[in-house]
Amino acid sequence: MTTTSGQADERPAVTVIGLGEMGSALAGAFLAAGHPTTVWNRTAEKAAPLVAKGAQQAGTVAEAVAAGSLVVVSVKGNDNARELLESAGDALTGRAIVNLTDGTSAEARSVAEWAAGRGVEYLHGQIMTIAPGIGSPDTVVFYGGSESVYEQYLPVLHLLGGKGGLIAADAGVPTLYGMAVHGTMWGTLNGFLHAAALLTDEGIEVKKFLDQAGPSVSALLGIFPMIADEVDRGEHATPFGALQHHRPSVDDLVRESKARGINDAFPNYTLGLVDQALRDGHAQDSYSRLVEHFRKP
Amino acid sequence: MTTTSGQADERPAVTVIGLGEMGSALAGAFLAAGHPTTVWNRTAEKAAPLVAKGAQQAGTVAEAVAAGSLVVVSVKGNDNARELLESAGDALTGRAIVNLTDGTSAEARSVAEWAAGRGVEYLHGQIMTIAPGIGSPDTVVFYGGSESVYEQYLPVLHLLGGKGGLIAADAGVPTLYGMAVHGTMWGTLNGFLHAAALLTDEGIEVKKFLDQAGPSVSALLGIFPMIADEVDRGEHATPFGALQHHRPSVDDLVRESKARGINDAFPNYTLGLVDQALRDGHAQDSYSRLVEHFRKP
Repeated sequence: MTTTSGQADERPAVTVIGLGEMGSALAGAFLAAGHPTTVWNRTAEKAAPLVAKGAQQAGTVAEAVAAGSLVVVSVKGNDNARELLESAGDALTGRAIVNLTDGTSAEARSVAEWAAGRGVEYLHGQIMTIAPGIGSPDTVVFYGGSESVYEQYLPVLHLLGGKGGLIAADAGVPTLYGMAVHGTMWGTLNGFLHAAALLTDEGIEVKKFLDQAGPSVSALLGIFPMIADEVDRGEHATPFGALQHHRPSVDDLVRESKARGINDAFPNYTLGLVDQALRDGHAQDSYSRLVEHFRKP
Repeated sequence: MTTTSGQADERPAVTVIGLGEMGSALAGAFLAAGHPTTVWNRTAEKAAPLVAKGAQQAGTVAEAVAAGSLVVVSVKGNDNARELLESAGDALTGRAIVNLTDGTSAEARSVAEWAAGRGVEYLHGQIMTIAPGIGSPDTVVFYGGSESVYEQYLPVLHLLGGKGGLIAADAGVPTLYGMAVHGTMWGTLNGFLHAAALLTDEGIEVKKFLDQAGPSVSALLGIFPMIADEVDRGEHATPFGALQHHRPSVDDLVRESKARGINDAFPNYTLGLVDQALRDGHAQDSYSRLVEHFRKP
């Protein structure tokens, strides 16, 4: 990237606290775009590759925080994030914090509440990729918290990922969005890998299945808005795809798995959910009725 | 539909055995397209609505089979399908059978083997919709078995659903394709509904989540070809999205679920799979490595 001497000065100074794989990728993206970048890590040696690329290495968190107008945090656990920031003391005054540390929504909120108590502007972000994806225009980061921090530093934040955005004023929401996407993904992958076990047991290449059954698999995404609407309205009656129609097909999948000696725990789990809903009188309802099961401990 | 007297005679006579919701929809589609249609059902009364639309009602399966060059079967269970067809005796000679009865792959094959033993041409089909979807250009039916039956009766079969097609010479494969699509669907829905429970517990409408996180959810489909390739090659090493990176995020989802008092069985199941794979030394591998878990009883 070419920079004129004038432009370089206009780029805000950024501090990155935490240089694991992710923190190092974040600092690398800021450096690549020509931002003055200061880094700190508990194990100081991890800063070396970034220093070689032009980063300043701070000796303490306070020193690091003092060096950047934007302080980006990526460490293991939000308790850790809060304690490190607390150690910066008065250096925090006037700084904007963007905390990209993973955890639960309550943990994210506890850091936001601490920041509010200190009068520090705070944004929490949920990165939807692993380190090598940082910097891609397709990478999604969900943000929640201070709109003014988001607006002021948008060009800097876009260096990390080009998609996503500010979804809530509540710092706990981005992590819930991340969990909702990932939870859907793990369910999808569990179902697909069980299917892959079934197909390959028969000697069918999974790629061949995808080539031939692609439209049916793609159509699964089309179900989401319908299911979302049913859950949001709390109304599950349906003329199409009622639980009583799912039941025999789930049972076929359990029987096929047993007959082949492949794992039947996953389809059996689904069969248990459907059977309980049928016992509860929901035979005419959509699969979305099962949200009630997931709501109970 | 207007028919000239010439065209009507050219349409092959079709027989439908079994008039449950699905069989009735199939017969209805043939009648709507002007095919001479003969129907049989164990409980004869179910034929009345079809007779009112012009169907001939047969008194026995043999009589029904004798009336149609194409015999379509849609009953409860393939043992039942085979027994009914057997009862037709010599009337089967020269007939083409398309069996659309649900069940396992072994059950479908047992009917195909019986048909081969009788010298009757046979095609097994897996319908990927429920009865109201019959007749749509978007409805998928996977067929396996006789290519000549498929080719000869393609225009008739397309009356049931416009998509899908002949995927194998083996009559057991369509049901496996159906199970692979549905199994992926149930996994996807379980993950999505658990996510919906999480979001709505926070007071977030699921539709709002879909509107804001849509690209991330849609991107899940993009994973399938990569996973398929890894499973097919039996190579799971990956620079991107290794199990060690999934692990803390799955754990966050379990902890978030527990903290909210919503069901944690589904994310806990995933956590158990990931932890077992990590214990087995697969930390650097893609999630596709879990296919090995699903392959074991």
